[in-house]
Amino acid sequence: MAATNLTRTEQVMQSIRDRIDRRLLTPGASLPSVRAMAETTGFSKSTVVEAYDRLAADGVIRSRPGAGFYVSAPLSPLSLDRIGPQIEREVDPLWMLRQSLTHGSHTLKPGGGWLPESWMAGAQIRKAMRAAARSDADSSLIGYSSLLGSERMRTLLARRLEEQGVGAAPGQILLTESSTHALDLVSRFLLEPGDTVLVDDPCYFNFLALLRAHRANVVGIPMTPTGPDVAAFAAALSDHRPRFYLTNSAIHNPTGATLSATTAHRLLKLAAEHDLVIVEDDIFADFEHTPAPRLAAFDGLDRVIRIGSFSKSVTAAMRCGHIAARPDWIDSLADLRIATAMSGNPLSAEVVHAVLTDGGYRRHIEGVRTRLARARARTMARLRDIGITPWLEPAAGLFVWARLPGGLDAARLAREALAEGIVLAPGNVFSINGMWSDYLRFNVTLSDDERITAFLARACA
Amino acid sequence: MAATNLTRTEQVMQSIRDRIDRRLLTPGASLPSVRAMAETTGFSKSTVVEAYDRLAADGVIRSRPGAGFYVSAPLSPLSLDRIGPQIEREVDPLWMLRQSLTHGSHTLKPGGGWLPESWMAGAQIRKAMRAAARSDADSSLIGYSSLLGSERMRTLLARRLEEQGVGAAPGQILLTESSTHALDLVSRFLLEPGDTVLVDDPCYFNFLALLRAHRANVVGIPMTPTGPDVAAFAAALSDHRPRFYLTNSAIHNPTGATLSATTAHRLLKLAAEHDLVIVEDDIFADFEHTPAPRLAAFDGLDRVIRIGSFSKSVTAAMRCGHIAARPDWIDSLADLRIATAMSGNPLSAEVVHAVLTDGGYRRHIEGVRTRLARARARTMARLRDIGITPWLEPAAGLFVWARLPGGLDAARLAREALAEGIVLAPGNVFSINGMWSDYLRFNVTLSDDERITAFLARACA
Repeated sequence: MAATNLTRTEQVMQSIRDRIDRRLLTPGASLPSVRAMAETTGFSKSTVVEAYDRLAADGVIRSRPGAGFYVSAPLSPLSLDRIGPQIEREVDPLWMLRQSLTHGSHTLKPGGGWLPESWMAGAQIRKAMRAAARSDADSSLIGYSSLLGSERMRTLLARRLEEQGVGAAPGQILLTESSTHALDLVSRFLLEPGDTVLVDDPCYFNFLALLRAHRANVVGIPMTPTGPDVAAFAAALSDHRPRFYLTNSAIHNPTGATLSATTAHRLLKLAAEHDLVIVEDDIFADFEHTPAPRLAAFDGLDRVIRIGSFSKSVTAAMRCGHIAARPDWIDSLADLRIATAMSGNPLSAEVVHAVLTDGGYRRHIEGVRTRLARARARTMARLRDIGITPWLEPAAGLFVWARLPGGLDAARLAREALAEGIVLAPGNVFSINGMWSDYLRFNVTLSDDERITAFLARACA
Repeated sequence: MAATNLTRTEQVMQSIRDRIDRRLLTPGASLPSVRAMAETTGFSKSTVVEAYDRLAADGVIRSRPGAGFYVSAPLSPLSLDRIGPQIEREVDPLWMLRQSLTHGSHTLKPGGGWLPESWMAGAQIRKAMRAAARSDADSSLIGYSSLLGSERMRTLLARRLEEQGVGAAPGQILLTESSTHALDLVSRFLLEPGDTVLVDDPCYFNFLALLRAHRANVVGIPMTPTGPDVAAFAAALSDHRPRFYLTNSAIHNPTGATLSATTAHRLLKLAAEHDLVIVEDDIFADFEHTPAPRLAAFDGLDRVIRIGSFSKSVTAAMRCGHIAARPDWIDSLADLRIATAMSGNPLSAEVVHAVLTDGGYRRHIEGVRTRLARARARTMARLRDIGITPWLEPAAGLFVWARLPGGLDAARLAREALAEGIVLAPGNVFSINGMWSDYLRFNVTLSDDERITAFLARACA
């Protein structure tokens, strides 16, 4: 709250208006008592009384005889700008998403979140499309999907999960549009406005935007190279009684960290003690050389919900995500899915299934992994030359998380870069606590251009 | 509340537990005062005190000195079964949806909500698929969609809206997965739990399931052959201060009614007086012979939000819905869309666009309209022979809303039909007020089978 020019009374008024705007107080909700508000703000009771009286005069709140004040203002439409942690607009997750989705192909995107289209399985996708077009069966071209989505696809997913040590029957898998859609359904299922969710700090920035849309209270756990800081995790469980913890175990976005078996066991022990649900987003699974520990594997899908998709490794244009979880949860999630989306994309499931089972896909993805390893090495060498230091050497994946020299402000750099047609991903976009101001996430497949190196070298000189 | 075997104290306890289960009371929420609860239930204060004490002993609620009781029970995961109006399970909207999506092709579905696959534009879809597979552009096969979705598709939609008298720039249109997804985004944007939404009674049953997932208070306006009952609409605006009104103007589902210009003007006048938003779902637009009045056209997309899709007329397997609304609303809706779904389906937009602009499509859809008219006449004649009376003769579309003779219970009939492999759509699935117990919705394209006629004739004899 930027309140330097406001009187104390106005500061209290502003704070209440903020809460209403951010929907932490909704029409009919009781305001904190005068005493509680005075304690919270450190101002006198008479200041709070005056503020409440002026808000009442403005028609924002109303008094209920003998029962304090309640909100009477009409609800304004939900605007994500006004909800949740107010991060500087330039490093806001939604700014980042909009940058990623709106710029044309002439823009350089070292901060981008996906592979160039030329790296994807275009040949296999076209082959699968032609096969689908030739097929006599109308069901995947015309009809609605079945309740849980394509059985063939769910059977394939069950087999792939098995390879990661996660036992899941096809009936425990619900197809979704994407990993984001999967997380959205899980959030609808588990969250009430105001509930606490733990995330890694840093974490994938859209987790923050999505949880903001659910009006969750988001608490960040500092990330270490082997997973979240266990002591901080334990403290957060005691302090906040969170509803779930959301993470990438295998190839962490944005850091490239890999969860260790030790950390995994400790997290699950703590989760069991506090009856915490864990949501494990495994969207980068296909880029791993050797499978890292999975919380879903250790836990056996008891309190862990696994979500994932093929948007990063097969295609983002045909949406095909999934949720694997306890059967009774899948049942409720399926209800929520049909109530809020009616049906899935049978064609997407059909095409992605065909690509994944095409003999060419295994060779293709192995080639991608090799190219990624080379690109990571190249990008890290180049960054080190400029004085930008990788936080760790990722075992796999497309991201390098690296620190600018001399405490340079990455958000400022990102603004300057945008003026030159370069989209960077500044650290605090990924951070609920704003603790990574001098970090950038680099996509190693999009960081080769000389103009990017030249810009960074100038900025870091 | 089935409470015949419970003591009064237990009835009060059960009522509180129900409210917690249905999330009308969430953790931390205050319970009604003892006096208020005594008045509501008609029981004595001492009964209420005893009930509250026993709930406190069970750990469900806790007392706050001097401030009554509040809910302390941990939140249970959201289950749609437990939320909103408890309709008999057999005629529940989710039951209907599950029936529609789970049964195999051997089941007869006169209650179904869509055309048989053989009626759809299969040839045009296959042609568009082959063209997409041949295309050199990877963007619609591999990449994420742009912020609002395919510009070509939005430009086409703007042109089609223009033909209906709705002026909308392409930048005022956001592509979604489906009409349901569009309504879901609008509900996120406009609703808080407990807000009131007006719907037609009867209305499309998934509206009820979706609004239940948003925990809206749903109020039904009795339908007339020219739109909702205007007097009841006016009364509901005064009594409930609803957030929005949701309707199908052109070909109303399930009744086949058409909004008259007079009713449209009256509704918009009332909406303006009460600052009500109107959401107009135009999913059946392509089946119209001559365009009926549209609220969006009269209003000019000021307080009307128009949603639609091509799931009924082109394909449901490639999801392509949309929202047309005020530019500032579209901006916020786009934020919500990327936060909760990340991206759309570029391929779906590409294929649907190709089908709609294919010369063959116009001929195809004209053929469908003619076949529908014949099928409606045939179905209505057959139903009348059995003694089942259409509520009106729809001007277009695939539904006939018809009354069983002698006050027969349609829900019971639907259960009996299911045992014989016939899925019927009983009236109260569509009714928030349960006022259509002897009605059925017939899909005229799926009602020809002799076994259906035989079953109905037996039941009505």
